[in-house]
Amino acid sequence: MNGEIIAVGSELLLGQIVNTNARFISEELANIGINVYYHTVIGDNKQRLKQVVEIAQQRADLIIFTGGLGPTKDDLTKETIASLLGVALSMDKAALQSIEDYFSRRNLNMTENNKKQALVFDGSEVLPNDNGMAPGMVLTKDGITYMLLPGPPSEMEPMLTTYGKNALIKRMDRSEKIQSRVLRFYGIGEASLEDQLLDLFEGQTNPTMAPLAANGEVTIRLTAKHASDNTRIQLLDTLEQTIKERVGEYFYGYDDTTLVKEMGKLIQENKLTLSVAESLTGGLFQEEVTSISGVSEWFKGGVVTYWPEVKINLLNVSKETIDQYGVVSEQCAKEMAENVRRLLQTEIGLSFTGVAGPATLEGKEPGTVFVGLSMKDAPTVAYQLKLSGNRESVRTRAVKNGAWRVIKALQSL
Amino acid sequence: MNGEIIAVGSELLLGQIVNTNARFISEELANIGINVYYHTVIGDNKQRLKQVVEIAQQRADLIIFTGGLGPTKDDLTKETIASLLGVALSMDKAALQSIEDYFSRRNLNMTENNKKQALVFDGSEVLPNDNGMAPGMVLTKDGITYMLLPGPPSEMEPMLTTYGKNALIKRMDRSEKIQSRVLRFYGIGEASLEDQLLDLFEGQTNPTMAPLAANGEVTIRLTAKHASDNTRIQLLDTLEQTIKERVGEYFYGYDDTTLVKEMGKLIQENKLTLSVAESLTGGLFQEEVTSISGVSEWFKGGVVTYWPEVKINLLNVSKETIDQYGVVSEQCAKEMAENVRRLLQTEIGLSFTGVAGPATLEGKEPGTVFVGLSMKDAPTVAYQLKLSGNRESVRTRAVKNGAWRVIKALQSL
Repeated sequence: MNGEIIAVGSELLLGQIVNTNARFISEELANIGINVYYHTVIGDNKQRLKQVVEIAQQRADLIIFTGGLGPTKDDLTKETIASLLGVALSMDKAALQSIEDYFSRRNLNMTENNKKQALVFDGSEVLPNDNGMAPGMVLTKDGITYMLLPGPPSEMEPMLTTYGKNALIKRMDRSEKIQSRVLRFYGIGEASLEDQLLDLFEGQTNPTMAPLAANGEVTIRLTAKHASDNTRIQLLDTLEQTIKERVGEYFYGYDDTTLVKEMGKLIQENKLTLSVAESLTGGLFQEEVTSISGVSEWFKGGVVTYWPEVKINLLNVSKETIDQYGVVSEQCAKEMAENVRRLLQTEIGLSFTGVAGPATLEGKEPGTVFVGLSMKDAPTVAYQLKLSGNRESVRTRAVKNGAWRVIKALQSL
Repeated sequence: MNGEIIAVGSELLLGQIVNTNARFISEELANIGINVYYHTVIGDNKQRLKQVVEIAQQRADLIIFTGGLGPTKDDLTKETIASLLGVALSMDKAALQSIEDYFSRRNLNMTENNKKQALVFDGSEVLPNDNGMAPGMVLTKDGITYMLLPGPPSEMEPMLTTYGKNALIKRMDRSEKIQSRVLRFYGIGEASLEDQLLDLFEGQTNPTMAPLAANGEVTIRLTAKHASDNTRIQLLDTLEQTIKERVGEYFYGYDDTTLVKEMGKLIQENKLTLSVAESLTGGLFQEEVTSISGVSEWFKGGVVTYWPEVKINLLNVSKETIDQYGVVSEQCAKEMAENVRRLLQTEIGLSFTGVAGPATLEGKEPGTVFVGLSMKDAPTVAYQLKLSGNRESVRTRAVKNGAWRVIKALQSL
């Protein structure tokens, strides 16, 4: 199957929101061996929707739509496609029931326009919406499969993974499959990585290798193509091995893992606990930690000491240290890490202090960051970083570096 | 001008990255009155690039390309468009100099393939790249304007705002302009808002009104079209006034502001300071606060008390409260808010405790959240919320609700 993803929504064309749906769907399709060759975005406009569908029918045999399934007047995807394909719409009882339940659970009155959401293509496979009202649907007609999904990612994503993917797998010609594996690296630049693997990048055809650099990390996507599941995995394993022999020290994980997640796994494996003191990162590290469920196994909490006075009063950083070295200093980072560790009674204490920008602080340039790491029964250390980019980028890169320091420290235990 | 944005890059089709460029460019173009009707994404493939350009030429008179200007073999946008349009490429001296400088500043050797980045269309306007190597370019041919921009957002965004927009404004027929204004609402559902404004939604043609619901907020985008700047603003003002007469109590700000930003403005205007104690949100609130530069005027810091023991030891929440009511309780939220306020010596203390999910906690369902608010010289209060959605959604909505509570409290001072 060759796919095209068509997102319908004027808010996308106005730049009000970003089309994260196309990314999510593309990744999910790649995982089951469906190639996506086109993403298209149009507004809530019948005429233009018809035209792009006619173009898509010439170049794709799987067309996935997102958006325009809601109750309002500008939700017109379903009606437009039905008219274009010449299929009738009929009321799906289960979907209607689910919409009625949705309102009654919230003690709200269901208005008439909400019923229209339960209309589906005659003869289609209905995809239940466990997180909203409008159901999705799949229909194959004249050799082309059409899948309609709702626009809100919180509804679309679980619908696709829970129901949509299976509906597609059933319809696939499974003679040959592609399979991807992403290797993630930290602490090495893209050019340097490419340099060390140049012969591989140039010589590899199966698996293929695609590098990508973003936010201080580099990834390599390996994609193998073969009918046999075992052979695909073997092809990926062999190439991964060769890559790791050369740049393994920078490798930290697979696919969509993160440095913070890998750090968490290691802390948990070692049966340790973590606390964190953040200044310039302002809670970003702890937020990323707690976005993972189940972290209370190893994460106790921490502080956001944005003001110097809070560093002193809440975290017992000594006033002398701050007066003598400033808050953007190795000494302050060390005290923050050590004190948060003692205060929260954890084995690991991690700290961040520095200049996020745009203004300088204590005469130091934005991007000047100190990461402090205190571990029980080991000398407390601090690392100075020179990070580039804007405020957001400096904070994000500082957080990654902190997780990397913990990973390296635990790996050398 | 009617625009189409074509992004070139296989990493987009594999779902490895999201097309934030299309969003950014769309918003920038909307601001200068250029309509965007299509976004298209294709991989690094000459044939398909040619085909989508031929389609775009039928329906747009401004085509903006992102990606494929780099030094590697799969960067083929420039060469493909040049061949399609029949224009020659020539070396741009300033761009070449800038690339050479880029390498020498970093003490790196420039490889031959990097020179190719300085090739530009003959007769085009070159857009300097202040944050990378590949320059952009603009060329108008047979009534269609082509703009080529680099793929990395850190290069593309400043190039567009600093140079690209002016190049487009010069080429525009400025007889009529559109202007948008987004009104943001919190605490009211999309259907209910639409219900109260139904006659406006149906009757309005200039300005038009487009509603959008996302993450517990609803926005309405008003778009006015007129040659006169004053008339456009007057049209927007009049409609905004009418809308606010009906649903003004839920209005909180304009365009891409956030509840946290508006909260910050109010705190600063009132010359107050804020501290925060977070449990289920794990730093998300403070992270959002500190992502804004200059918040040290009014934000002192806070704590992330993920473990009950940390609530007791670090924040002095009484053990009796936790034993009797649990951490997911009005009582605990109140103590957290009050104690963080006293500990950090601020006028406002805000707290979050609850169940992010997916597991239940203390027998309470995910989405059960208490927001505590303590203000100097006022009784401390806590609000119970029932939030829907997954872990991420619950945390995000809790943060918004907290900001909303502070806004409402300060508005009633």
